[in-house]
Amino acid sequence: MKALVYTDRNECAIQDRPIPTIQSPTDAIVKMQHTTISGTDLHILSGDLPVVEPGRVLGHEGIGTIASLGSAVSERDLYMGDQVLISCITSCGVCAACRRSLTSHCHSGGGWALGCVIDGTQAEYVRIPHAASSLHRLPTNIDARACVAFSAALPTGYECGTLHANVQPGDRVAIVGAGAVGLSALLTARLYTPSLIVVIDLDETRLAHAKRLGADEVINPVRSDAMERLDELSGEHGFDSAIEAVGRPQTFELCQRLVGPGGSIANIGVHGQRAEIVLDRMWDHNINIKTGLVDTVTIPTLLKLYQSRKIDPSKLFTHQYRFSDIVEAYHSFQHPAKDGMLKVEIQF
Amino acid sequence: MKALVYTDRNECAIQDRPIPTIQSPTDAIVKMQHTTISGTDLHILSGDLPVVEPGRVLGHEGIGTIASLGSAVSERDLYMGDQVLISCITSCGVCAACRRSLTSHCHSGGGWALGCVIDGTQAEYVRIPHAASSLHRLPTNIDARACVAFSAALPTGYECGTLHANVQPGDRVAIVGAGAVGLSALLTARLYTPSLIVVIDLDETRLAHAKRLGADEVINPVRSDAMERLDELSGEHGFDSAIEAVGRPQTFELCQRLVGPGGSIANIGVHGQRAEIVLDRMWDHNINIKTGLVDTVTIPTLLKLYQSRKIDPSKLFTHQYRFSDIVEAYHSFQHPAKDGMLKVEIQF
Amino acid sequence: MKALVYTDRNECAIQDRPIPTIQSPTDAIVKMQHTTISGTDLHILSGDLPVVEPGRVLGHEGIGTIASLGSAVSERDLYMGDQVLISCITSCGVCAACRRSLTSHCHSGGGWALGCVIDGTQAEYVRIPHAASSLHRLPTNIDARACVAFSAALPTGYECGTLHANVQPGDRVAIVGAGAVGLSALLTARLYTPSLIVVIDLDETRLAHAKRLGADEVINPVRSDAMERLDELSGEHGFDSAIEAVGRPQTFELCQRLVGPGGSIANIGVHGQRAEIVLDRMWDHNINIKTGLVDTVTIPTLLKLYQSRKIDPSKLFTHQYRFSDIVEAYHSFQHPAKDGMLKVEIQF
Amino acid sequence: MKALVYTDRNECAIQDRPIPTIQSPTDAIVKMQHTTISGTDLHILSGDLPVVEPGRVLGHEGIGTIASLGSAVSERDLYMGDQVLISCITSCGVCAACRRSLTSHCHSGGGWALGCVIDGTQAEYVRIPHAASSLHRLPTNIDARACVAFSAALPTGYECGTLHANVQPGDRVAIVGAGAVGLSALLTARLYTPSLIVVIDLDETRLAHAKRLGADEVINPVRSDAMERLDELSGEHGFDSAIEAVGRPQTFELCQRLVGPGGSIANIGVHGQRAEIVLDRMWDHNINIKTGLVDTVTIPTLLKLYQSRKIDPSKLFTHQYRFSDIVEAYHSFQHPAKDGMLKVEIQF
Repeated sequence: MKALVYTDRNECAIQDRPIPTIQSPTDAIVKMQHTTISGTDLHILSGDLPVVEPGRVLGHEGIGTIASLGSAVSERDLYMGDQVLISCITSCGVCAACRRSLTSHCHSGGGWALGCVIDGTQAEYVRIPHAASSLHRLPTNIDARACVAFSAALPTGYECGTLHANVQPGDRVAIVGAGAVGLSALLTARLYTPSLIVVIDLDETRLAHAKRLGADEVINPVRSDAMERLDELSGEHGFDSAIEAVGRPQTFELCQRLVGPGGSIANIGVHGQRAEIVLDRMWDHNINIKTGLVDTVTIPTLLKLYQSRKIDPSKLFTHQYRFSDIVEAYHSFQHPAKDGMLKVEIQF
Repeated sequence: MKALVYTDRNECAIQDRPIPTIQSPTDAIVKMQHTTISGTDLHILSGDLPVVEPGRVLGHEGIGTIASLGSAVSERDLYMGDQVLISCITSCGVCAACRRSLTSHCHSGGGWALGCVIDGTQAEYVRIPHAASSLHRLPTNIDARACVAFSAALPTGYECGTLHANVQPGDRVAIVGAGAVGLSALLTARLYTPSLIVVIDLDETRLAHAKRLGADEVINPVRSDAMERLDELSGEHGFDSAIEAVGRPQTFELCQRLVGPGGSIANIGVHGQRAEIVLDRMWDHNINIKTGLVDTVTIPTLLKLYQSRKIDPSKLFTHQYRFSDIVEAYHSFQHPAKDGMLKVEIQF
Repeated sequence: MKALVYTDRNECAIQDRPIPTIQSPTDAIVKMQHTTISGTDLHILSGDLPVVEPGRVLGHEGIGTIASLGSAVSERDLYMGDQVLISCITSCGVCAACRRSLTSHCHSGGGWALGCVIDGTQAEYVRIPHAASSLHRLPTNIDARACVAFSAALPTGYECGTLHANVQPGDRVAIVGAGAVGLSALLTARLYTPSLIVVIDLDETRLAHAKRLGADEVINPVRSDAMERLDELSGEHGFDSAIEAVGRPQTFELCQRLVGPGGSIANIGVHGQRAEIVLDRMWDHNINIKTGLVDTVTIPTLLKLYQSRKIDPSKLFTHQYRFSDIVEAYHSFQHPAKDGMLKVEIQF
Repeated sequence: MKALVYTDRNECAIQDRPIPTIQSPTDAIVKMQHTTISGTDLHILSGDLPVVEPGRVLGHEGIGTIASLGSAVSERDLYMGDQVLISCITSCGVCAACRRSLTSHCHSGGGWALGCVIDGTQAEYVRIPHAASSLHRLPTNIDARACVAFSAALPTGYECGTLHANVQPGDRVAIVGAGAVGLSALLTARLYTPSLIVVIDLDETRLAHAKRLGADEVINPVRSDAMERLDELSGEHGFDSAIEAVGRPQTFELCQRLVGPGGSIANIGVHGQRAEIVLDRMWDHNINIKTGLVDTVTIPTLLKLYQSRKIDPSKLFTHQYRFSDIVEAYHSFQHPAKDGMLKVEIQF
């Protein structure tokens, strides 16, 4: 089969690989239909995540059909030929971490493994460990293509952004970073009807996407009056929620500047270095800061919301490529601003 | 009347002051019976809190009797002669912050004002604004002296420590700092029956107090095997809760080192500078960090627990002085280790 | 002044009364601009609430301006001439019940008193006890008329319906009863983006209102296939939330029939008799049932949502009368179906 | 092998049965060491649960060792010879119900099956479906015999009693029913340090057990002043929590009489008929009622608490029998008052 392989720092290529086979009775093999390239894949390519070694098949989002099933997977859960959504988090469902819904830290070799420490979804076939708890059978009356964003981007924005920031009706919410995950936080924050969502980014095309997806106001920090306007919007008492979706010390600090007493900061960004916490100002500010990898526990909710047309993940997709052109897609995605690229779908 | 006044950096003295009078119909004047010196008073004295200006009467804990009442205070709430507990947080009870129990950030001139921006409780009389919501009538069958720790120390340990760290039955809890507030976190964490509480401090006499108050294990970080022993105690997956009760960048960093995925850090310490947050390690660790001033909303619960003998605040007190000797008490409290001083009661 | 007085079972009349005066320093006198007639007023008229005695001025919703203020009310909270929203719940803000946001059971003579045990808002002037915590200053850029539904109907639907039923994104919600409060539950349930809201009522004009206000489906139980259709809509596992907004044993039982394991029943209805709980079926169903009077703690949130155009209370109003015609309005409201009456506004 | 079989209404007998074998790759066969007889077994025997048919091997609590493992069970989870605790709830860990910790309603043939719709633990061997998520490996430094109460009794008292009633520090708690499950509620309520726990039962020997296990006061309702004393204990505002552990309409009604506004009723009792809910009094009382089967999600916590000596399940056991004498044990357990029988352990 063909697979996109991370070969060296800043390099990847399509290579021939053997089709994966069942290794454990709880495995499934999925024949891929749709995958994506995400911002995290670019981090890997640039060498930021040393845990990912050259030779690895990348990709952690995907839709496909069951091509093969381990002997322990119950027909009640999965069936040959089922169209399934692959969770970026594979998890056993039974260890102490999974039992408390902390699947991102599954003790049985689970967590974020796909396209990281085991081969991922940018290939014609992928092996999924712990299939029963890591795959979601798709309803038939749904646009499967758009659902691929439910593998990682949407649940990350939902869990690590909206839920960790405890967005509530009437709240004032600031989202720092308007990439696919920041905008997934926007889409899911709107489920709770805050009174105001402000999105902050340096890239005007991304801000335009934010506007299109329902931001009440967008702000480019290069504007000379940016902080003034943010203070005006936050009112006398600061934002209730600030969502960090960039991964830099400066954006984390901006969130501390924006949030008011009693408010919450949700860190989604993948950070490569330490940041500062302004404890001399914050120690008495009753602030909640939450970090975390996605557990993908919201995938069933997201599927229900899409089925009932209350959320539309297709709005995140701006570009589509054939799998044979995936290397070109990577190149374009490295300069997303050039043609307003937000989320890329790869079709097999 | 006599009052202890902060006169200059590192200096305080008993001075003559006029007895305070009702300024607003919601005020009360309290004739003091018991007060304390707290670690925060030492911070003020050393000039760390510039908001406190020379000339201020210090003190934010206290028990006394109602000597005078504003016209708006209902007899249903308070009565002349009532013995009352003074909350270190004065709050109006009706502003937007108070309505959400964030009394520490009361918009009506409330929050931590006593002995900070208005005259405090280390005086023969004190004026208490917003009396109905800032004073708690004491039950008669209770040792009033010990209750003085319910003004600030105990609720701070409870709310900013135990509750912010979300201590639950069976959890493993680390408390960094064994001063009166750290040990108040210990006393209140025990209300939730964790399976293990470890207290960490550099001072052996404080560790001895921790042992006496129910710590399962105490650790002095100067021990060569301190980190090893902590890792052993935390088990494979880290502590569930880490409570910072010192206020230094290093102790805040130790908490990040101790807490496991899914765990919580509660910052109680009063910090004079920024700290670092190890986001390159923590971004995917599903950690919750909470900072905050006490709201004293747990005072009624603490009074019920003391009445039913489920908690005993008297265990925190090691020394007692007459108010006329308070300057001497300050001097001794600046070197608490010397004679195992933990919490000082000042009697009028 | 003119006031609508409950004179005898099924009888009310406009009478002359003295303008109320400040009785406690925390009182305010409000000159009324808008009030309503609610379903509860009809219950009173028919003698269902014996606590309400003949001679009582009715009414518990209202908008007006501050005509007089007690000496203890701070200018920070209220000012002469302010346009204010009257909460149907008056509460002291400082008793043990208020401190835990259970203002409906305020120990200081608060709770639901207006138009019940003290004179209410269907009069040219009304005395409001505990003014600072019972009145909400209106923002200037808002349609005051529509806000009158924030006095009781909307917060009741929100707190006793949507919040007690724990409505969450993606949930399936059944609302039994499409009066003003049932439809307030509908408007506020939508703030949390459930995947399905079904409204059930015997009155087709009310079902038409439900449709207009955003119900996904409406069902009249007289339809021969009503239960079949409800089972279809609930799916295999029952509704997540069932909201009772009628107040009869049969509708309470219907809610038990509709809710699935793990689900919640919120009882809003004012019941005049006992009901049955099907414990032989429910004991192992992990169901949550919540009853309660509104605390009106959501009024500030509702005001923010209205200001930001995320909720529109004006949609509830179908009819308007002058205060001089209020007796006629009562007569029409006793047969609301006749001309599609939902919520009546009375203008002074 | 020998097995205790429910043969007919009020009859059971030891019979010879074939040793069960692996039927699904996720099964395990456990060789039993300890089991119990529970009150629910008596309900079955008396024909109250028609779902249990004659021919069924009874029993849903147990400790044993792994005698055989399905091919899909990972060695990381379970190993041949491991000593394990059997959860009375068997659950797949991956269906929609399990994903939200509602394992009692597992969609994959799980829930309460053992000794109910599949053969149970009162036999020399038992087949456990979904072994990885239904068995808990025991720590080595623990008294395995006492742990058998962690299969059902303790988690039921904890989850369906203490947690559903939301017991908090300082609360006043009433427990109606002092059988093994009611007293398990007592043991686990104490984990949260309420200020008062009152236990109510008609049987003086059970009340003596309640006293021994830490009840602050016990009350026999036959006392002429029982209600008076209860009102005195509850104070002006009623109990915060009332736990029903009997299963009769009268005891459910007593709970409604005891609980105050803002309080919670937790129903643990297995009810054979409907009950009444006093909605004419309760509709405005802000009461929470929770019903439910145990999910056994607290077993890991209970094991940690026992290991650290913070809870002692051995205190529940009053009698011990050899398995060969189990029929005699059933006979004695039908009249537990006679010799103070509380919980019976059966040893193989």
